[in-house]
Amino acid sequence: MPLTEFELIKKYFNSVTLENSNVVLGPGDDCAILAPINGQEICLSTDTMNEDVHFLGSMPGDVIASRVIAANLSDIAAMGADPSACLLAVTLDEVNEIWLDQFSRAIFSNLRHYCCPLIGGNVSKGPKISITMTVLGSIPAGKALVRSNANAGDGIYVTGFLGDSKVGLELLRSGKNQDYLVSRYCHPTPRIEEGKALRNLASSMIDVSDGLLADLGHLCTASDLGAELDLSSIPVSGYLQEEVGKELAFRFALSDSDDYELCFTVPKRLENEMNNVERSDLAPITKIGTMIPGNQIKVLSEDGSIIEIEQPGYKHF
Amino acid sequence: MPLTEFELIKKYFNSVTLENSNVVLGPGDDCAILAPINGQEICLSTDTMNEDVHFLGSMPGDVIASRVIAANLSDIAAMGADPSACLLAVTLDEVNEIWLDQFSRAIFSNLRHYCCPLIGGNVSKGPKISITMTVLGSIPAGKALVRSNANAGDGIYVTGFLGDSKVGLELLRSGKNQDYLVSRYCHPTPRIEEGKALRNLASSMIDVSDGLLADLGHLCTASDLGAELDLSSIPVSGYLQEEVGKELAFRFALSDSDDYELCFTVPKRLENEMNNVERSDLAPITKIGTMIPGNQIKVLSEDGSIIEIEQPGYKHF
Repeated sequence: MPLTEFELIKKYFNSVTLENSNVVLGPGDDCAILAPINGQEICLSTDTMNEDVHFLGSMPGDVIASRVIAANLSDIAAMGADPSACLLAVTLDEVNEIWLDQFSRAIFSNLRHYCCPLIGGNVSKGPKISITMTVLGSIPAGKALVRSNANAGDGIYVTGFLGDSKVGLELLRSGKNQDYLVSRYCHPTPRIEEGKALRNLASSMIDVSDGLLADLGHLCTASDLGAELDLSSIPVSGYLQEEVGKELAFRFALSDSDDYELCFTVPKRLENEMNNVERSDLAPITKIGTMIPGNQIKVLSEDGSIIEIEQPGYKHF
Repeated sequence: MPLTEFELIKKYFNSVTLENSNVVLGPGDDCAILAPINGQEICLSTDTMNEDVHFLGSMPGDVIASRVIAANLSDIAAMGADPSACLLAVTLDEVNEIWLDQFSRAIFSNLRHYCCPLIGGNVSKGPKISITMTVLGSIPAGKALVRSNANAGDGIYVTGFLGDSKVGLELLRSGKNQDYLVSRYCHPTPRIEEGKALRNLASSMIDVSDGLLADLGHLCTASDLGAELDLSSIPVSGYLQEEVGKELAFRFALSDSDDYELCFTVPKRLENEMNNVERSDLAPITKIGTMIPGNQIKVLSEDGSIIEIEQPGYKHF
């Protein structure tokens, strides 16, 4: 006999993720209750991942869990905030206990890693698997790194390497094995520590979830500016170059790869302090260009000529 | 050409719901930002409604919107809290602009009514329509009405009438017209004001979303108690009795009707103060029984005999 909704929640989603003195009441009542932290503001974001759209139905539960967590916590990272709690709404077409076991273990292990207790949720039936997470973060009042605060002349930076995730997915789909690239797709890293380290340096920030050009485009629109990027400085991993060659590596790094890296701007007068952010436990940080007046993103080749780029970004409809 | 995700959000989900000084940053960035209110705790709940499971795909957008809002705000009401903000994750199979127009207008008109600004969201593609709302409420610290705080001897009360929604849905499905019952299904009322009025009187509270017996059962389990209900006191509307007869009316009132009424307990010493809660702008409140030791819910007929009730509550799987 299949599990009921409540048995299912009890069996798979009832773990205590961690002690957190701000959680007054966890899951199981009509609402969870949080006590706000003095002097802190609350950042909130919600994100849905649907089977056959955002992930393959054949993927193991732990991969979906890692990607859901990364997508959501990456939004918290992009404000420079600290994760404080989350809620998880899970729609299932059937009760597949093997999948659920993998999924829920990975959810809780990830949440423990990022100190983000699961305080509420919902399990319902639907045509396919669909996961919506809502995540809360906390940040000292006035310190959040929004998209709209860049100025012309600010340097543009990214964390980590771009393009790996897109090729990782293609390799996974075709059954080819390349551990590093596939793992960048399956288990991306939300850049929480990097975001926090940049709180007093960055003027604006966004996470790269739809491809660098698309997401930097959102930052440019919000700041009413353009950007000039130096193609050769875009960080692409050696693994990616080896797999697809240099030209395609740069193309994938610019277009629709959801790497969950941070893209941010730093005022000129603070750029020399960027060295202080470099830490062995953080992802590498690379300067890739400069914010400019106007509303265009120009990508320059090594000889200074402008490279034409096709329509960037992932289209949902 | 169909709208892109961002055009769609701009066209349908970009309304400013209302001014709220606690919203530091609304939709459009990686996160929204809220400033917590001094001395208040934050209540949070998330709820999903899926096409063909929680609603019919043929239902107009404004009905789905009303029911999503009711289901979510009802959880806030059941804590005695005030709605403060919400996030909306919408999955669509196609861009149906007529449906979206109805849906988004009703979302914003409901949210304005309940002073609950939409501060963030997500639009994605999926196999069917699926709506996940996450709602936040605020309540003075320590005042939330949880399920676990009832004591033996406390009176059991409900707001409004029970059973209407279940029969309303059946009438809607069969194409029959009975304005009141159908509207109780299509446009249920989250009992926000009633919940707030009960903050200093009720010992425990839950909302009736899976049927009275099922939800009172959750309250009993959480409080480690049983309940004794007087069948003839269960409030059923005249419309419901007229439509299905007295016996079925009581049966539907007990079983899986998602009326979004509040069920709550009041300590004996405070029961005479319940008269002060009666206000012309609030739903009627009816005493239906008493909390008792043990772990059973007994439903008594007028002659005091125990009535056997079939398996209560809606089963998702």
